[in-house]
Amino acid sequence: MDKIDEAIHRIKPLDERAMSEARTRQDNLTKPQGSLGQLESLSIQVAGIKGEPRPRIIHKVIFTLAGDHGVTRSGVSAYSSDVTPQMVYNFLRGGAAINVLAKQIGARVIVADLGVASTLEPHPRLKDKKVAMGTHNMAERPAMSQEEAIRSIEAGMELVEEELAKGMDILGTGDMGIGNTTPSSAITAALTGVDIVTVTGKGAGLDEEGRKRKVKAIQKALALHHPDPKDAIDVLSKVGGFEIGGIVGLILAGARFRIPVVIDGFISGAAALIAASLSPQVKPYLIASHQSAEPGHQKILQHLSLKPLLNLNMRLGEGTGAALGIFLVEASLNILNEMATFAEAGVCEKI
Amino acid sequence: MDKIDEAIHRIKPLDERAMSEARTRQDNLTKPQGSLGQLESLSIQVAGIKGEPRPRIIHKVIFTLAGDHGVTRSGVSAYSSDVTPQMVYNFLRGGAAINVLAKQIGARVIVADLGVASTLEPHPRLKDKKVAMGTHNMAERPAMSQEEAIRSIEAGMELVEEELAKGMDILGTGDMGIGNTTPSSAITAALTGVDIVTVTGKGAGLDEEGRKRKVKAIQKALALHHPDPKDAIDVLSKVGGFEIGGIVGLILAGARFRIPVVIDGFISGAAALIAASLSPQVKPYLIASHQSAEPGHQKILQHLSLKPLLNLNMRLGEGTGAALGIFLVEASLNILNEMATFAEAGVCEKI
Repeated sequence: MDKIDEAIHRIKPLDERAMSEARTRQDNLTKPQGSLGQLESLSIQVAGIKGEPRPRIIHKVIFTLAGDHGVTRSGVSAYSSDVTPQMVYNFLRGGAAINVLAKQIGARVIVADLGVASTLEPHPRLKDKKVAMGTHNMAERPAMSQEEAIRSIEAGMELVEEELAKGMDILGTGDMGIGNTTPSSAITAALTGVDIVTVTGKGAGLDEEGRKRKVKAIQKALALHHPDPKDAIDVLSKVGGFEIGGIVGLILAGARFRIPVVIDGFISGAAALIAASLSPQVKPYLIASHQSAEPGHQKILQHLSLKPLLNLNMRLGEGTGAALGIFLVEASLNILNEMATFAEAGVCEKI
Repeated sequence: MDKIDEAIHRIKPLDERAMSEARTRQDNLTKPQGSLGQLESLSIQVAGIKGEPRPRIIHKVIFTLAGDHGVTRSGVSAYSSDVTPQMVYNFLRGGAAINVLAKQIGARVIVADLGVASTLEPHPRLKDKKVAMGTHNMAERPAMSQEEAIRSIEAGMELVEEELAKGMDILGTGDMGIGNTTPSSAITAALTGVDIVTVTGKGAGLDEEGRKRKVKAIQKALALHHPDPKDAIDVLSKVGGFEIGGIVGLILAGARFRIPVVIDGFISGAAALIAASLSPQVKPYLIASHQSAEPGHQKILQHLSLKPLLNLNMRLGEGTGAALGIFLVEASLNILNEMATFAEAGVCEKI
């Protein structure tokens, strides 16, 4: 926990002066003030995060963290847990959606095993951060121990630290784990207070019967363990997942190193709830890439006061929404850096 | 009018077979079916437009058409009409927002004078399609003659034809014209039947007094000319603009040559209303890039049954929204073309 506490201690507010200078520049560019909407505010937020009035993004990193979930044994997913390692290999071969979108935006993808329930073959591009062979079935016992919850967060922080030397101007979060909308719904219910039925969707493709089983499993887990909404580590350990803990670590380390953190969808959102509960200071470092089709995600975004950049009815995870969001952040900074000012272009300002 | 009629006559429905093959491929890619939401449906729409099950986008073109508006003499804009030519020069020097975003997505920008109210200096990258030196003040007399309205549409069609040989796999629409939210609101009111106050916003930055003047000018124009909502050329000539007519031409020619047409914001939306009124067959060729902060745009999108890809509170025009939209279309096709199938990746399908 020392590592987590130290990171939290080092998270600083955004740089007001850099933001003010970026705002002034935006207002002098050849367009009506405010006419690029969220593209303008995004660029100012990133200026504040980086402490530079005209920040640049060169190195982009998307972290796709994998873990398995014992609760799949309660019939909460349309896919078998075998698919988690299969998809990890797909990521490593470059055949998944996140590979395609990361390539388009020029980002590198870091794939890490936080807790897949099988032994993965070593691969030069696979980061081994396995905490355990999947979580326990939270409908029967806590998903993991407090020590494992802490370890998963620290593992996520290590991933960021290990990539820093290669350059990281922005990071995107991503997940892979069959069954992981179930812990995400449980975390959302526990930390936002919204009722379980409202925040539980069909995940990767449940029918209505399946969704009812999923609601029951979450009800059982929350009734059995009573996670303390004031203790985010308690929530993570009782109804969370290893990849979710890992994403909490990505967020804390991102904020600690003043890196804009582009949050993917529902699973990353659940991790953001935990991170913001551990340290509200992370909030201004977060950029919500999109609003997932999973109903609980909207509740998370409202709870964190985040306005998503996109709403394309996506629900895949992996960091696919984050990749699209990073493109928009880059657009916002290109506007800030490359447009001519009224004076430079000889254009008259408002009457 | 022969040229317009011929284009309309040649617009065909989307290719159902290509769409069906694209749908089948999307369903076999390593992701839950439908989990990429609008990115999936976009790729299928483009397959239908191009008549290819796995289309590719290499050449991207954004057309930024400029024109002036006599109605600015009624005090409807926060900027002087002098800004229109100044911004045209800014486009040609590469200092405007559209230049920055087009560069990011690798699109070429075609700048054309459809009706700027001053004589522009010749420039190798400026297309001269001037119909007249700005429109008349529609609050006093029709903005243009029927012949001029037809000529502006034909000019837009010519722009597409002239660029075809250089390659054009997708086109984005864009506009520049001080005062042009006023004709766009008038067109929207005339063709959708929604009341003038609802579809009239603050444009590039009017205060509330200015917005009232703008509403009055539109009320006066519509009461004076009674444009016939069943005759889109009549609407364009009485309360339109030359760049708006040009964009109508871009849309008709795009559909005629089976090129996906990515619509920018409010002004392009008003042109899309006219194009769809001339030929409902253009509708499936349209992709709405974003929803503008201008209140009338939402009414246009509803009227055309278009779901915008982005909603970032933008209201600049130039094609800036279209540029972001083209990136998303490209993402949708990269997914379709580059992802591995379940069989290729050895990933199990749904239980």
